[in-house]
Amino acid sequence: MLGEEQAFDVVVLGAGPAGYAAALYGASAGLKVGIVERDRVGGTCLQRGCVPAKEYLETAAVYRNIRSSSEFGITTGEPGLDFAVSQKRKQSVVDKLTSGLSGLMKSRGIVTFLGDGVYQGNGRITVSTGETLVGDKVIISTGSRPRSIPGFEVDGRYVLTSDEVLLLEELPKTVAIVGGGVIGCEFASLMADLGSKVTIVEALPRLLPGVDQDLVDVMVRSFKKRGIGIRTGVGVTGHSPNGEGTTLTLADGSSLAVDQIIVAIGRRPNSEAIFGDKASVVVSDRGFVNVDVNYETSEPGVYAIGDLIDTAQLAHVGFAEGVAVIKTILGEGSLPVDYSRVPWCIYTHPEIAFAGLTEEQARDRGYDPVVKKDPLGGNSRARIIGEVDGFVKVVADRNTHQILGVHIVGPWATELLSPGYLAVNWEASAEELAQFIQPHPTLSEAFGETVFALTGRSLHVG
Amino acid sequence: MLGEEQAFDVVVLGAGPAGYAAALYGASAGLKVGIVERDRVGGTCLQRGCVPAKEYLETAAVYRNIRSSSEFGITTGEPGLDFAVSQKRKQSVVDKLTSGLSGLMKSRGIVTFLGDGVYQGNGRITVSTGETLVGDKVIISTGSRPRSIPGFEVDGRYVLTSDEVLLLEELPKTVAIVGGGVIGCEFASLMADLGSKVTIVEALPRLLPGVDQDLVDVMVRSFKKRGIGIRTGVGVTGHSPNGEGTTLTLADGSSLAVDQIIVAIGRRPNSEAIFGDKASVVVSDRGFVNVDVNYETSEPGVYAIGDLIDTAQLAHVGFAEGVAVIKTILGEGSLPVDYSRVPWCIYTHPEIAFAGLTEEQARDRGYDPVVKKDPLGGNSRARIIGEVDGFVKVVADRNTHQILGVHIVGPWATELLSPGYLAVNWEASAEELAQFIQPHPTLSEAFGETVFALTGRSLHVG
Repeated sequence: MLGEEQAFDVVVLGAGPAGYAAALYGASAGLKVGIVERDRVGGTCLQRGCVPAKEYLETAAVYRNIRSSSEFGITTGEPGLDFAVSQKRKQSVVDKLTSGLSGLMKSRGIVTFLGDGVYQGNGRITVSTGETLVGDKVIISTGSRPRSIPGFEVDGRYVLTSDEVLLLEELPKTVAIVGGGVIGCEFASLMADLGSKVTIVEALPRLLPGVDQDLVDVMVRSFKKRGIGIRTGVGVTGHSPNGEGTTLTLADGSSLAVDQIIVAIGRRPNSEAIFGDKASVVVSDRGFVNVDVNYETSEPGVYAIGDLIDTAQLAHVGFAEGVAVIKTILGEGSLPVDYSRVPWCIYTHPEIAFAGLTEEQARDRGYDPVVKKDPLGGNSRARIIGEVDGFVKVVADRNTHQILGVHIVGPWATELLSPGYLAVNWEASAEELAQFIQPHPTLSEAFGETVFALTGRSLHVG
Repeated sequence: MLGEEQAFDVVVLGAGPAGYAAALYGASAGLKVGIVERDRVGGTCLQRGCVPAKEYLETAAVYRNIRSSSEFGITTGEPGLDFAVSQKRKQSVVDKLTSGLSGLMKSRGIVTFLGDGVYQGNGRITVSTGETLVGDKVIISTGSRPRSIPGFEVDGRYVLTSDEVLLLEELPKTVAIVGGGVIGCEFASLMADLGSKVTIVEALPRLLPGVDQDLVDVMVRSFKKRGIGIRTGVGVTGHSPNGEGTTLTLADGSSLAVDQIIVAIGRRPNSEAIFGDKASVVVSDRGFVNVDVNYETSEPGVYAIGDLIDTAQLAHVGFAEGVAVIKTILGEGSLPVDYSRVPWCIYTHPEIAFAGLTEEQARDRGYDPVVKKDPLGGNSRARIIGEVDGFVKVVADRNTHQILGVHIVGPWATELLSPGYLAVNWEASAEELAQFIQPHPTLSEAFGETVFALTGRSLHVG
């Protein structure tokens, strides 16, 4: 039995980055938008993902900087950490952004329904609170949740996923992180900086698969220096809690006694329990909703975006997909997101950021790549802030000098990517970029210098 | 009597940013380059300017961050400052960069002569150590030095310029800074953060003339909060030392008792004592060397660049001019630097950075400007790092949406300018930029969001 129906131009199921971007952009284009969210607006990214994780990483940065402040002539006692206060600050940051987002949505006339939504077909979404929304078009963006592994029941005591880590009131003294991808490495970095003894266990032969190995090498060197244990090429088989902590067993027969285990092996789409019998949206074996190049599902007029589909699980990719779908709905013919050129940011210490192709990927695609690299040791501002481990690496086509990829590791890499990201997407050549001189002294110069060197002449880079 | 002559394709007089950039770029293009420097390579910027000043500003940032670290749950005692150690670190940063630069020049085959050089005409530069260099082309780049004012003899005790401030072993408890331009404001910011009681005295009605007033307002609010006194619209008439400190008298009859006075009213070109009788290079009344659009002086084959000519006194402008002159010398026909679009960076807390036109400047040039602004209060990363005072402001043409100017105030503004700087120089439109989504969560999003809003639709910015 459905309640009273409310009609919208667009109804959105799931108010994470993909969904709220679609709602905000749609509303700014004059569409009447209704959105259903079972938790708080903002989704994983804001509530249990990027934002709280980066807040902890900032706490780790502040702590780390204090510990090296004596080099600047600043004297402090050995710093202590009251993690409950850190936790509270994190929550207050999240709460402020949540209320900002929710106020913004309201001010744009977006109607938010808090409850579990189910897409019932024919443009209808029912909400557990009794309402029914009907949309000319429907966008489904219910996101993803952490995967778990057999033998590692997530109990919040011995075994945690990112969801539980971000709620800790106290840090474990020893911790094993199962999974050496982005999430695992970010947690390893921050927990080690805050005083935990961390070991990463990764079944694949290397950390951060898919990321240029040169960048990863810099991160791994820093991890090792900070006492992070790294076990690659070995899986995990189970764990035995003992009241105090638990013992993790590895596939090579070795074991590791730790206080807690964090499982960070990836995320799975939330595609269960969101479709009623009359919906005809097809979901793949792996749980992703199938979409065409315009993000339309097998049911006409129904679109899916964000972590629910099999594209890069990044908040800003969700934003881009949300915008693209609204343009499609408006009949404007949007360009699909070029996934080979989206920006990637990893907030470990040191930070990693990149867009476009690695040297190998360029070769695989038939380019004859040429590579230039500017190590930060010669960069004035890196010396000034005292973080010289890192570099900017630019991959270009040998003949046209078109910038194919920009790869950065080092301080503020995530903020330094922007000009490189634009260059890759604009298909700019080194010559076009080298006309412009980055301000001195900045970390941004490293990109400028690297591009300059690709013209065959240079200032500081050989 | 001239010593043995050594022949070069290009001889450069003055190894600051303009001169060493010309030398490095020229050498990378295969030119044989000789360079004369009376002090150490690197010039004012590296030895007595941007780099040491920014190093102190970083010390101030570390100190400030420690004082606000309790908000993150980190406990420290009240931090102390051993400024002699800060001084030592600053010098070590400068020394490392100096030896890096000097090694790089050597490795490119650039021959450096340390001594006072005089341009004698006919491509000849004599050095006080006895050598004579002869160049097919000559580049003069002897830079600038701090201006002083009558009645304020620079004695290093009561009256200092930036040269002396950067050598202090101890910070004054109270200090008056005469001049509220970039240098004055940077010193005010860092000295206040490190515990000095600072008053800025500026004869003009506002601080940072030429900078968008909106940006300056944010800086001024922060200055006032941090206890910096600001006296604008009033000149200084003199000072009377009293053994302990000195009393500064102002044109309105008031006075200010301080430990030291810093004179930061600008810099004057070093155009004296560098020209022999046979040189025919014309110097203006104000001491600048006159150049044409290709930086050629009144004497054919002799070029002048950097602070010695009447263009923006910025290290990276010197770099750009150095590169441009070498291209001209190589007969490649270079584009002159577009001074209305160079990047400006001010390293106060909060930082300020901009490129291109302000709203008023755009109007003056006949544009119909439209402005969008993204205040950092809604930016996730600004909330995370806890620095939400600031914004990104983009000025565009109302009809074409061409990006005319980008103005940023807030954390890391100097590193965030790069995409905006490129956009201004590429004459990109808001629509061209808005196709690309900046990574989340970053400060870089503020630029992306602002540009997005200029398309008439938006995500977070209204």
